[in-house]
Parts: sequence; C-alpha cells; structure tokens
Amino acid sequence: MQNSRGKLIVVSGPSGAGKSTVIGKVMERRSDVRFSVSATTRQPRSGEAAGKDYLFVEQGEFIRMIENDELLEYAEYVGSLYGTPTAPVKAALDEGVNIILDIEVQGALQVKAHMPEAIMVFLIPPNFFQLEERLRCRNKDSEEKILGRLETARREYSKAAAYEYIVVNGDADIAADELYSIIVAESCRREDRLKHLITDTE
Amino acid sequence: MQNSRGKLIVVSGPSGAGKSTVIGKVMERRSDVRFSVSATTRQPRSGEAAGKDYLFVEQGEFIRMIENDELLEYAEYVGSLYGTPTAPVKAALDEGVNIILDIEVQGALQVKAHMPEAIMVFLIPPNFFQLEERLRCRNKDSEEKILGRLETARREYSKAAAYEYIVVNGDADIAADELYSIIVAESCRREDRLKHLITDTE
Repeated sequence: MQNSRGKLIVVSGPSGAGKSTVIGKVMERRSDVRFSVSATTRQPRSGEAAGKDYLFVEQGEFIRMIENDELLEYAEYVGSLYGTPTAPVKAALDEGVNIILDIEVQGALQVKAHMPEAIMVFLIPPNFFQLEERLRCRNKDSEEKILGRLETARREYSKAAAYEYIVVNGDADIAADELYSIIVAESCRREDRLKHLITDTE
Repeated sequence: MQNSRGKLIVVSGPSGAGKSTVIGKVMERRSDVRFSVSATTRQPRSGEAAGKDYLFVEQGEFIRMIENDELLEYAEYVGSLYGTPTAPVKAALDEGVNIILDIEVQGALQVKAHMPEAIMVFLIPPNFFQLEERLRCRNKDSEEKILGRLETARREYSKAAAYEYIVVNGDADIAADELYSIIVAESCRREDRLKHLITDTE
C-alpha cells in the first residue's frame, strides 16, 4: 500500500474562499501531501515567495512552456496567465506523493481531461456574501478587480457540477479535515487496494 | 448540510479482523456516528451486553421478524442467525445520524441491494496469518470453530470486489482514521451538497 501511486487532487473555488489556508492546514498534517507550484505571469503580491507560492515567469517564457507542451493546464485569469508544469507533478505521483493543485475551474477541467484519475474538489465559502466580505477585508485589490473576481466566482459556481466533492469552508479546520479525509478515503478505494488482497488469498 | 440525510456504512471483513475495535474508535470521535445493533440467535459471549452489543433473541422470534419483513438483512453464520432490524436504521438516517452496520458479506450484499446508497467498506488484517493468530489469541473458541471461521474468511476475501473501500487494519488507530475519513468524504460528495450551492447562486 505504501508504494501505491500518489493521488492528484484538484482544488478549485472562488477567489477568497480560503483555498490556500485550507490546503496549508492539510499539508501541516500530512507529510505525503505536496502542493503543486503554479507558474504565473502575474506580479508577486507582498509576502509571496518565488518558487514556493508561485513560479513567477515572464509572458515570453510562459508562451514557450505552452509551445513545448510543458504545462498540464493553463488559463488566463484576471488578466494574467497561470499554468501547472507537468513534469514535477508526474514525478511526485510516481513516488507515491499526493499532489494538490490549486487552480481555477477552466484549468481544472483541462487536468481532468488529461488525467481522469484526478480527484476534483470544489471549495466554497458558506455563502456568497461572505466571499465578498473576504475579498474586501483582504484589502489588496481595487474595487474594479473585486467586481471582476465576484463575476468570475459566479461563473465558477455554475461549474461545480464537474467536481466530485464540495467542501464548504465555514471553518478552515473543518474544511481541512474534510479535504484530508477525501485524500485518505480515495486511497482506500478498492481498485487501488484489491491487488494486495488477491495476492494474500489466492 | 447539517440536516442532510445520514450515511449508511456497511463494514464487513473476516472474523478477527478487528471490526469492533475500529468501529468503536470511530464512534469515540464522532457523536453523529451510531452503531446498528444486530439481532442474533447466538448465545451471549462473556462481557457482551444485551441490547448494546446484540439484541439476543430466540429462534422463533427471529423467524417472526423475517416473516414480518422487519429485517434489512439476515444470514446464518457459524450456526446462528444474525440480522439487522430495519426501523431503527431508517429512523436514524432520517435524523441525519450516520449508521455503521457490522455484518458479514452475505448480509452486506442484501443491504446494498435494498439500499444502493450504502457505503461498502471491507476491513481486513494485513495478512491472513495475522487473522489466524488473532483468532487463536482470542482463545474463546474451539479449534473446530476457528477452522470454520478461517474457511468463511477465505470465502469473504473473494467477495471483496463488491466493496467500494478496503481498510487494512494493521494499526487500529490508522484503520479508524481511514473509516472515519470515508464517512467524512462521502458526506462531501457533490450530489449531496450541490443543492445548497445552487440555492446560493441562482
């Protein structure tokens, strides 16, 4: 069991839903869960570390990665490009490490199309008003950007049907517990474990 | 979410796999998980409490329950009848309580046929030799009964394919964590949660 392939967990949800916090809490508990670092053309926000939070790349470099088929998915979001480098994800899964991708819906659907075994989790705040409140409390963005994000969020909601699991982030610890549970439960699925069983009995 | 219907979790596995211990640990952690008390015609073992561990009934009473369609499933096992009274299970699920059934494979398949939403979990020891060791260490049964149980266990193994999840009980705390995670993850499934989402957005 210990040597089975890692799980790929795709987490999406409206901006401000608390994805980073929840994923961070899961990784605190599980050494076998790693976060996939996305490449992006957007500017670093204060406190973000290059190579840890994002791989910050120039537009030209990003285009080159697309052309060389080095991205598992990519998308434009609020005027910037975001993408997931394929090689580190596949290498980690092969080693038995579980990989969490924090990507928006458009990219998530690309991942699912390429890797149908991906586990799709949609993370949402308890209600839309709380989302708006969080975006404003974050106080990092202009009113125009906030409205843009809210409109994007509305579109994301309607796409939740593509996701297997929905985690409601009313309390980040409970949400982390749920996300963690999804990873554990998925690794208990019969298809993954039956071969060990058969070996024992036949 | 709090008012959603409870989950029915069916746990099977070879005798001596540690089902009672693992289920007990889950219930220590979760107040919203209840154990379904089976009816049986077998004699109480020392330490077993009537109405708590089992509902001990006479053969005639058991037959009456079958005839009155009061059992969700029933089966003969090592010479005794075991069954699950339907009414308390359905009442608990309606209240949003998760119900765990600890039943052997034959009965479990009856439950799945009647209630396809049942979550099927197969609990096994890490290998067959450990199962044999545990049965002997328990030291409660004759050699003949042990051999009978081992033969039944071999048949149960081959039926694992009917189960959605397999939990390997090498360590009871890890196994309880896995069983608990399966319950949590299943309550995060989109089908259960999407209606709340739609209400928020449309």
